[in-house]
Amino acid sequence: MTVQIVTVGDEILIGQIVDTNSAWMGQQLNGIGARVVKKTAVGDMHQHIIAAIVEGFANADITLMTGGLGPTKDDVTKKAIADFFGVEMIFSQDTYDRIKSYFTKVNRVIPEDALQAQCLMPANATLLVNKMGTAPGMWLEQEGRVLVSMPGVPYEMEYLMTNEVLPRLKVRFPGRPIAHRTILTVGEGESNIARRIEKFEDSLPTNIKLAYLPNLGQVRLRLTGTDDDETVLHQLLDNKARELKNLLPEIVFGEGDLLLEQAIGDFLRKHQLTLGTAESCTGGYVAHRITAIPDSSDYFQGSIVSYSNAIKQNVLQVKSTTLEQHGAVSEQTVQEMVQGALNVLNVDLAIAVSGIAGPGGGTPEKPVGLVWLAVGNKNTLKTQKVQSGRDRLKNIQYAGTMALNALRQFLQSEYEDRI
Amino acid sequence: MTVQIVTVGDEILIGQIVDTNSAWMGQQLNGIGARVVKKTAVGDMHQHIIAAIVEGFANADITLMTGGLGPTKDDVTKKAIADFFGVEMIFSQDTYDRIKSYFTKVNRVIPEDALQAQCLMPANATLLVNKMGTAPGMWLEQEGRVLVSMPGVPYEMEYLMTNEVLPRLKVRFPGRPIAHRTILTVGEGESNIARRIEKFEDSLPTNIKLAYLPNLGQVRLRLTGTDDDETVLHQLLDNKARELKNLLPEIVFGEGDLLLEQAIGDFLRKHQLTLGTAESCTGGYVAHRITAIPDSSDYFQGSIVSYSNAIKQNVLQVKSTTLEQHGAVSEQTVQEMVQGALNVLNVDLAIAVSGIAGPGGGTPEKPVGLVWLAVGNKNTLKTQKVQSGRDRLKNIQYAGTMALNALRQFLQSEYEDRI
Repeated sequence: MTVQIVTVGDEILIGQIVDTNSAWMGQQLNGIGARVVKKTAVGDMHQHIIAAIVEGFANADITLMTGGLGPTKDDVTKKAIADFFGVEMIFSQDTYDRIKSYFTKVNRVIPEDALQAQCLMPANATLLVNKMGTAPGMWLEQEGRVLVSMPGVPYEMEYLMTNEVLPRLKVRFPGRPIAHRTILTVGEGESNIARRIEKFEDSLPTNIKLAYLPNLGQVRLRLTGTDDDETVLHQLLDNKARELKNLLPEIVFGEGDLLLEQAIGDFLRKHQLTLGTAESCTGGYVAHRITAIPDSSDYFQGSIVSYSNAIKQNVLQVKSTTLEQHGAVSEQTVQEMVQGALNVLNVDLAIAVSGIAGPGGGTPEKPVGLVWLAVGNKNTLKTQKVQSGRDRLKNIQYAGTMALNALRQFLQSEYEDRI
Repeated sequence: MTVQIVTVGDEILIGQIVDTNSAWMGQQLNGIGARVVKKTAVGDMHQHIIAAIVEGFANADITLMTGGLGPTKDDVTKKAIADFFGVEMIFSQDTYDRIKSYFTKVNRVIPEDALQAQCLMPANATLLVNKMGTAPGMWLEQEGRVLVSMPGVPYEMEYLMTNEVLPRLKVRFPGRPIAHRTILTVGEGESNIARRIEKFEDSLPTNIKLAYLPNLGQVRLRLTGTDDDETVLHQLLDNKARELKNLLPEIVFGEGDLLLEQAIGDFLRKHQLTLGTAESCTGGYVAHRITAIPDSSDYFQGSIVSYSNAIKQNVLQVKSTTLEQHGAVSEQTVQEMVQGALNVLNVDLAIAVSGIAGPGGGTPEKPVGLVWLAVGNKNTLKTQKVQSGRDRLKNIQYAGTMALNALRQFLQSEYEDRI
């Protein structure tokens, strides 16, 4: 089963929004053995949308289209679809009733003309009921090819994919098995990893491919395999994944879609440990990453974001002499921040981060991107210095990943268990 | 000047990384009057890359390609480009010397074969020196069409675009003026805004288009215009932007790429006010958004992330009776959290957020997505209740935006000035 993904919207071409939809769709499609052969993005123009459908039908079994279904006047997708198939637009009473009752429920008003526009669809479309918003999803077929049109709002598209589109595709196109294993590493660069696993890579059978996916201190290693026999395929991938993990024991923290903060959370829950953070340059970002994981309240207690030196002193009890002698970005300061966090937050473990996120504030001795990290419990305290040199947001993100990695290393050595 | 953007990489098709590059490129291209007519993403396959260049050359003056230039073995872009043009690969001594000296400087080792691979490029390529990484950029031409190849690592691509590609394009293709104004709103839905500005929209001249770009509580309204006379174009857009802002006075907070947290920061700096946050369900996300803005230390002092009730009580001085009688997600609790933050952080203004991010923890009375917000200074304290109902991360993000909007509204009413 092959798929072409088409994203409609001037806002995508002009770059005012990042297309996260097609990445999410790619992951889901992959999971059911569908192969995305191409993605395209085109503007809100009648001919361009029609051309994209023509191209999708030529390249792939299924064309999945998102965007251009809103009630506002820049949205022309539905009309283009109807014209591609040479059919009229018809009114869907089901859609009308659903939207009307939704707005009544949330006690809001929708203008009647916007409502009417939302209810029109090409006459040959099967309605896919969108319970997350107003614009309907549509399923259309011609000579064995399938076109699906969904709204571009991410959670509406995700709802429709999960509940309407993927189940139908699985029934309609049972495909040749394709499978992946993704090994997750942190703390080492792509080139060094490539050198360490060169022999392994050269010895891979031809039906297995390896890809490196680097991102700010983390590299994901993705093995992709195909085989007619699904059992053989999964055994082969499991074996190769195990070999790969054994070659990189100290930098691998998991597999698949696992996040580093999730792996750490699972460890903390298992060992019944509580955690807090004391953050200066990361400004709450480490706490945000930790708390974006469901049920992180099982182990995460809280954070003191001590952006100003006053809060470092008054809340985290960092000594004024330490700040004066060594500065806020120093090994001594992060040590005292960890101590302060352990006391004030009353936690088993604390991470402290202080650095220069930039673009201002750097000096020759302490350049932008310099970050001091400390991790400690009531017995042990370890520090690390890291250096990046990118833009502000990336420096914050890199510091966050390195702080989590420092915690991972600390946990492994102190609690004698693997992450 | 028309552009087609081509992203190369199986990791894009499979959805393991989100393509943020093409959005950034779209914005930059737009700024110099270039029109992106299509974006495509193809896998790391020789023929697919060649087909993408053929398509790009057919559709647009310029084809900008990113990805597939790493030293690892899944990268085939350079060879495909050479084969498209029918030229040999040649060795670049400049690239060799640059990479060698970079690795020496950072005291790291690059395997010789990886280094050698990075130095090869198609014989007809002009080298674009990448000072941010190892893979070189390349500029290639044929019969008036331009192909540019850049690495997929975002900050490397951004460096090359800014310093090498955009300056060359401006000289090479002086184009017909196109310009945009983006009006930023927060706190009202797309349909309601459309109804309020319907007459304005209907009265727009044919050379001006309006687009709605909604995202979690915010809607951006983008006016796009073209005109041969750049002065006339900018005057027209300025007038229309002003009209639009006057129609939506209480929900507009700015124009262009301005972030809500940046608009608030500018206000706080102007009025010399300090800010802190007390966060439960947002877990540091509000502080992170505020501190992602350069120089936010001018006004932001810090945050107490009181994820556990213990920290709400011990650090923020929320009364145990309040938590027992009303619960952590209640108007009373966020009121006391603001008071605590004002005291502990010693700030002029504080925001407090407490809600149920989900997926667990909801009840019929307090469903997932319910959030209580409070904003206060030493004289006044205001609260708001908001409700979303999406996934955990989106609930956190929506709560963050609504918290910042509550602060914006508070500032406007208390300090009698506009944001």
